[in-house]
Amino acid sequence: MVGPLMTTESSLIIAGVGLIGGSIAAAVRQRDMSCRIIGVGRNRERMEQAVRLGLLDEYRLCDLSATTFPSGSLGIVCLPVNQIVASVQSLLDSGCEVVTDAGSVKESICHAFADDPRFVGSHPIAGSEQSGFESADANLFRGRVCVVTPAGPVRDAQARNCDRVRRFWQSIEMSVTELSPEEHDRLLALTSHLPHVLASVAAGCVSPEMLALTGTGFRDTTRIAAGAASVWTSILNDNAAHCIAAIQRAERRLAEFRSALESHDVAALTALWNQGASIRRLLESE
Amino acid sequence: MVGPLMTTESSLIIAGVGLIGGSIAAAVRQRDMSCRIIGVGRNRERMEQAVRLGLLDEYRLCDLSATTFPSGSLGIVCLPVNQIVASVQSLLDSGCEVVTDAGSVKESICHAFADDPRFVGSHPIAGSEQSGFESADANLFRGRVCVVTPAGPVRDAQARNCDRVRRFWQSIEMSVTELSPEEHDRLLALTSHLPHVLASVAAGCVSPEMLALTGTGFRDTTRIAAGAASVWTSILNDNAAHCIAAIQRAERRLAEFRSALESHDVAALTALWNQGASIRRLLESE
Repeated sequence: MVGPLMTTESSLIIAGVGLIGGSIAAAVRQRDMSCRIIGVGRNRERMEQAVRLGLLDEYRLCDLSATTFPSGSLGIVCLPVNQIVASVQSLLDSGCEVVTDAGSVKESICHAFADDPRFVGSHPIAGSEQSGFESADANLFRGRVCVVTPAGPVRDAQARNCDRVRRFWQSIEMSVTELSPEEHDRLLALTSHLPHVLASVAAGCVSPEMLALTGTGFRDTTRIAAGAASVWTSILNDNAAHCIAAIQRAERRLAEFRSALESHDVAALTALWNQGASIRRLLESE
Repeated sequence: MVGPLMTTESSLIIAGVGLIGGSIAAAVRQRDMSCRIIGVGRNRERMEQAVRLGLLDEYRLCDLSATTFPSGSLGIVCLPVNQIVASVQSLLDSGCEVVTDAGSVKESICHAFADDPRFVGSHPIAGSEQSGFESADANLFRGRVCVVTPAGPVRDAQARNCDRVRRFWQSIEMSVTELSPEEHDRLLALTSHLPHVLASVAAGCVSPEMLALTGTGFRDTTRIAAGAASVWTSILNDNAAHCIAAIQRAERRLAEFRSALESHDVAALTALWNQGASIRRLLESE
């Protein structure tokens, strides 16, 4: 029996060694020194630095056409969502036995591999507005949720691979939950993508000279608006249909706030406020 | 010459001994043990507890008709905005020489005392989603901005009183800035009231069972949505005109995000994202 705090992989291929990829490497290292970790990246200097830092045992540059990874390798693609499909394919072509990813959007990616049971989509819900493996944190995933999204009806091979991916995330102390790719994208549009849009709207409504009049409330509410445009525009655009529906839901609530204020309807305003407050307070009692 | 780190008040009357009132008391205590601090509150038991904790020297219950405060007292009203005008008047009637407040909205309050130079409006921009003097923090105000809002053309008496209020906030290490009440309300609608509405909208768009799929981004963005409904509906309703304009500005940006997604216009999405990100990043470099 495999204990939950022990990795079971003999070699791990991490494509994209940034904050997430680097933190996965650090988390595995901390728990299992025998796992061989191979990074895949564009930039030789950065990759060499990640080897010097001890995050990677070795690396390959992005063109993998001449590469064969050790048999039985597990691949994890930790790239922006618009680069995931191509990278998954090249890891599969280079001999990875099973490949998963860490993308914040699942439907389009899982759809591309609907007929290939070697791919199992994942979304470890953890991160920060920082980037780069210099900010890697071996405990970034501890106690957090990872959604695993098997595509379509689970066949034998996929069930086995899904189980392997699930165990991998559990080995770095994540709590794994299973959703269909479509359900994942619909829910994450509300729990993550919409909050990013609203944080960006809050920040975009002020001008630099007003910042002196902001407090900790503004600071917290807008923190995630400082994330990289390349990452967030990819996510929003890839999950456009669900994000549009989420934005419409927010537009309705915002219009309700405005109309309660227009009519000085304190009861309506209180009801609206309390709906949000009661949800948020559930997180505090955790 | 009065040093900036020394309070100059011999007696301070604090009406409303919650988080803000209690933190003012703690901040003054920490810096000047000779200042007599008198609390005004509704609840005898709570007031006695605040005396036992050392925050107050003594207290009065809310009916101040038989009370005369020590001559030369400075009064500070730290109550929800819809209770401030009545409380300021009763502190003035009970002998406070000068009265200020800590309300997040200034126009309606300052308007009520436009002809009385003994009142000078203030808004110390500091707080937390906690409440009650048990959460009082002597350093809550340190390094933060306090807006002082003299109403109308400053006459001699008001200039003197304004200077006294300004020195008081500086004595608890705040950085004081002066704005008209109208300008304060217009700007705070964007830097504080709108972020509260957007945080509430973000929280109100999810249901309890989705909370397992939230990360630190959701947690930070919605933190201030957990504030007390009584406090926040008063503020929003009192500053309704400016809040409506701020919400309309947010509605326009949200519609721009939606329409960029509808047309998969990544350039427009990137421009929108970068506007918010560039503002937010200015705070990080502080």
